[in-house]
Amino acid sequence: MNNFEFYNPTRIVFGQGQISRLSTLIPEDANVMVLYGGESARKFGTLDEVEAALGDRKVSLFGGIEANPKYETMIKAVEQVKNEGTDYLLAVGGGSVVDGTKFVAAASLYDGEPLDILKTGGAKLKEAMPFGAVLTLSATGSEMNKVSVITYDAAQAKMAFISETVFPQFSILDPVKTFTLPPRQVGNGIVDAFVHVTEQYLTYPVNAKVQDRFAEGILQTLVEDGPKAMANPEDYEARSNLMWAATQALNGLIGTGVPQDWATHMIGHELTALYGLDHAQTLAVILPSLLEEKQQQKQAKLAQFAERVWGMTEGDDAEKATQAIIKTREFFESVGVKTRLGDYQLDATCIDPLVQHLTDHKMTHLGEHQDIDLDSSRRILNRSL
Amino acid sequence: MNNFEFYNPTRIVFGQGQISRLSTLIPEDANVMVLYGGESARKFGTLDEVEAALGDRKVSLFGGIEANPKYETMIKAVEQVKNEGTDYLLAVGGGSVVDGTKFVAAASLYDGEPLDILKTGGAKLKEAMPFGAVLTLSATGSEMNKVSVITYDAAQAKMAFISETVFPQFSILDPVKTFTLPPRQVGNGIVDAFVHVTEQYLTYPVNAKVQDRFAEGILQTLVEDGPKAMANPEDYEARSNLMWAATQALNGLIGTGVPQDWATHMIGHELTALYGLDHAQTLAVILPSLLEEKQQQKQAKLAQFAERVWGMTEGDDAEKATQAIIKTREFFESVGVKTRLGDYQLDATCIDPLVQHLTDHKMTHLGEHQDIDLDSSRRILNRSL
Repeated sequence: MNNFEFYNPTRIVFGQGQISRLSTLIPEDANVMVLYGGESARKFGTLDEVEAALGDRKVSLFGGIEANPKYETMIKAVEQVKNEGTDYLLAVGGGSVVDGTKFVAAASLYDGEPLDILKTGGAKLKEAMPFGAVLTLSATGSEMNKVSVITYDAAQAKMAFISETVFPQFSILDPVKTFTLPPRQVGNGIVDAFVHVTEQYLTYPVNAKVQDRFAEGILQTLVEDGPKAMANPEDYEARSNLMWAATQALNGLIGTGVPQDWATHMIGHELTALYGLDHAQTLAVILPSLLEEKQQQKQAKLAQFAERVWGMTEGDDAEKATQAIIKTREFFESVGVKTRLGDYQLDATCIDPLVQHLTDHKMTHLGEHQDIDLDSSRRILNRSL
Repeated sequence: MNNFEFYNPTRIVFGQGQISRLSTLIPEDANVMVLYGGESARKFGTLDEVEAALGDRKVSLFGGIEANPKYETMIKAVEQVKNEGTDYLLAVGGGSVVDGTKFVAAASLYDGEPLDILKTGGAKLKEAMPFGAVLTLSATGSEMNKVSVITYDAAQAKMAFISETVFPQFSILDPVKTFTLPPRQVGNGIVDAFVHVTEQYLTYPVNAKVQDRFAEGILQTLVEDGPKAMANPEDYEARSNLMWAATQALNGLIGTGVPQDWATHMIGHELTALYGLDHAQTLAVILPSLLEEKQQQKQAKLAQFAERVWGMTEGDDAEKATQAIIKTREFFESVGVKTRLGDYQLDATCIDPLVQHLTDHKMTHLGEHQDIDLDSSRRILNRSL
């Protein structure tokens, strides 16, 4: 196991009916801005529930945060914060709303050009406005981590920033709130959480037994309960397990002391920025091809994955690795997320622009060995056609 | 899965050589009191390393904290805090030193009779002095939780208190520091961590898949790497896995949203208070008997435990449960912790006083169903002879 540091002060309040807890989780004299995405938050009653729990507190609303939240959108929220005298933010939505809220929390107290927060990856942040989240879509883990990914439209780029100042103070996870999600978002969430785990698990062994088994436990849960939630949207137990699995997938815990990859995410980000695929769709397309491309290097962990997650007992490590990649692709397809570029009306002509974007964004040494160079990325994209 | 709340703000700094990080983890102008147990902290160089890392900070020492730390001892540390003008505490040792330091942190800022902290279980605490820990024995999980158990000698009682004010600000976990432990303490630590997991896992199913698999992953790690650390004290990888497993066993995570038992601990506490057995020895004696006594009620989880932790595939659930209990007892014995009262020179005459103590301490409704009454406890003790 490698040396590591782990810190995560976000309070999780989990379960049916917990939105009412907002009445005690947010200071009574707070001037709250509620940030949300589309009209579903109003339509399905979540905003009403939130407003009721906030009671007499001063509340303003900022809606319309899109998937892959844009800098250009969030900067308007920062202006509204200043106009309203907001001193507490509340994200109501999925990972995009939480990510966007993190940016608003940081930029609202940042003494400088807000775009610098993205350009410096959050390194200069000293403080952020306190905020909490009411999660309505489980996928990204943003509800319990210090990472935010913002799309800067002017540069067609997804830019991440990381800072301990943007841990949510609390996140309320009510599985019932995920019952009304469209199937596409449920499938996307399952794939997103799955790939968050594999980015921290399918590398090379360092004998980190607790981390490996936690990773495998999350993957098994996604494999078992993902299809249940797809088949029966109101299966509370399946929804609960998926929600907690997705949070644990990216709250830092399973990544402690182990090598990490993240190449799938980095290549995938360019697919979203250039061609508008959903984040999870990009992961479903890239991961299986990347595992094929790096099968030999990752063979030991792929074989372990085959045995412990997929229950394979036959064959040598190479055969197990091959089968595990096939199983992974089939799983993504089974929850409705297609795994080929062709499924998204993209052909080989998309590859040059993607590789150019990777070059522009200095994504030239990816993966746990920093050996996924532009040629490797090109081969991975070719395998994804 | 049941509703739950999870919060754990302790920063973990893990790995070889990390004690030097004290130089940045503690405020530069802090007036630090270092609390420790016996002379091994000095003998093996840990105190020297700590003092070097603290640099020019004002430092005082408080040594001599015993296993099962006593109120009567810790109250002297509280006096020393006041005399020295201490404003930061640093525990250097195992769970007893960390537990004792939590009490000092709480009592030093408590406006009232310190014994009330124990009598009220920490309920009235509003603040505590900030503190960190350098862990030298992995077992109790105290390095990353909000619980402290203090022995009040005058009443022959072990009394727990729980408060969010006594989370360590940080804990440094350097597996090398555990190389020099005597085998008895290593075995005890393995058993303690193991039973922390089973208290949160061997109850009844609520379909909490992530929590179950995390629990099983910790248990498997203890089973695999415990004997390795016993056989080769300087096996860094085994020590690392044991250390992280023990921390994860009782930091609140695997207990979220699931029923919990804790009867083994409560009965065991009386064994320590009355007859001086090591904490882990009491757990090794009580757990197998308690599982036998409650085998039918716990059968579903015992069978799952048999399959997933012990790899059993043969027999029906009842047979698997029986075999899993036998395996558990054998495992405790294999790491040098005896599992019968007779092994500690106790016979049936000890039972009446133990049951009387349970009565006195209102331990009359234990277990996940609160149905381990005094008759049940008596039967469990009889099975332990």
